[in-house]
Amino acid sequence: MGKKRVAVVIAENFEDVEVTAPVEALEAAGADVVLIGIESGSVKGKKGAVLDTDTTFDQLPADAIDSFDMLVIPGGGAPENLRIVDAAVDFTRRFVDSGKPVASICHGPQLLISAEVLKGRKTTSVNKIRDDIKNAGGLYEDAPLVVDGNLISSRTPRDMDVFNQAIVDALGAVGAQ
Amino acid sequence: MGKKRVAVVIAENFEDVEVTAPVEALEAAGADVVLIGIESGSVKGKKGAVLDTDTTFDQLPADAIDSFDMLVIPGGGAPENLRIVDAAVDFTRRFVDSGKPVASICHGPQLLISAEVLKGRKTTSVNKIRDDIKNAGGLYEDAPLVVDGNLISSRTPRDMDVFNQAIVDALGAVGAQ
Repeated sequence: MGKKRVAVVIAENFEDVEVTAPVEALEAAGADVVLIGIESGSVKGKKGAVLDTDTTFDQLPADAIDSFDMLVIPGGGAPENLRIVDAAVDFTRRFVDSGKPVASICHGPQLLISAEVLKGRKTTSVNKIRDDIKNAGGLYEDAPLVVDGNLISSRTPRDMDVFNQAIVDALGAVGAQ
Repeated sequence: MGKKRVAVVIAENFEDVEVTAPVEALEAAGADVVLIGIESGSVKGKKGAVLDTDTTFDQLPADAIDSFDMLVIPGGGAPENLRIVDAAVDFTRRFVDSGKPVASICHGPQLLISAEVLKGRKTTSVNKIRDDIKNAGGLYEDAPLVVDGNLISSRTPRDMDVFNQAIVDALGAVGAQ
């Protein structure tokens, strides 16, 4: 079996550490990380980080999800930029439906709300969007880590360590049976 | 009759021009503007403006709404900071229920969502929160200005002129019958 592949979706105003820390943890665990953006080129984080996207939603082949083992949705202002792009919303919806792990942190669930995949699912997030999660049918929980089936979520950068451990463990479990 | 009084609610990361331009327009129309914040002291905008709050939600008397003629909810990151403060949410809900004009722009409706006052009401906003408005039962419209009863809304700073004219007109109409 080859290396595990993880899709990390980014857009302008991503919360820097919510991208860089999971990417570092996943690569340290031996995974290939693919940064997917709305457009080609570089994307700026809220705190000044600049990252180059590896590909865009439009460039992905129709069966792209088959080639990924996990989706990570960092927070900041990125999710609200991603959620108004149909290709990003469709990709997210199909990833959740695939049953493979989908991890979100902070404002990440804004993309899950627009993908309409939270109904009856336990999720956490930064508390500033908790009412939106509830209105989307999600079951909001205020905890450092919430796991419900293939949905993994944390609240803020304060939960970074437990989040990173959870996504590395979940990736390790993919295809392990 | 004395001067009309307008409550403008602010918090960290407000969208600068969405506070300063309406305040300027309202004051030019002869209104007293009261900046209400979560805490006493100064508050920073996203683009660097620094404003001093005139009062806080906690300092307002129980019948404070009687002394105001209109509520304005600017956008940026402020509404998501206000929506997790019970006193701000209660103030907003009671203001909408009072029937007096309540104007929002950009991310402003995030506060209206948490106040649970959008059910069946036509509202616009920045498109990044349109799905949250719909999930809150609001009827989202993509237009420079949407007026539904006492709710007045615009999308972004691009709509600033029509928004300012609408709130000045609405304030002029208060008590005019």
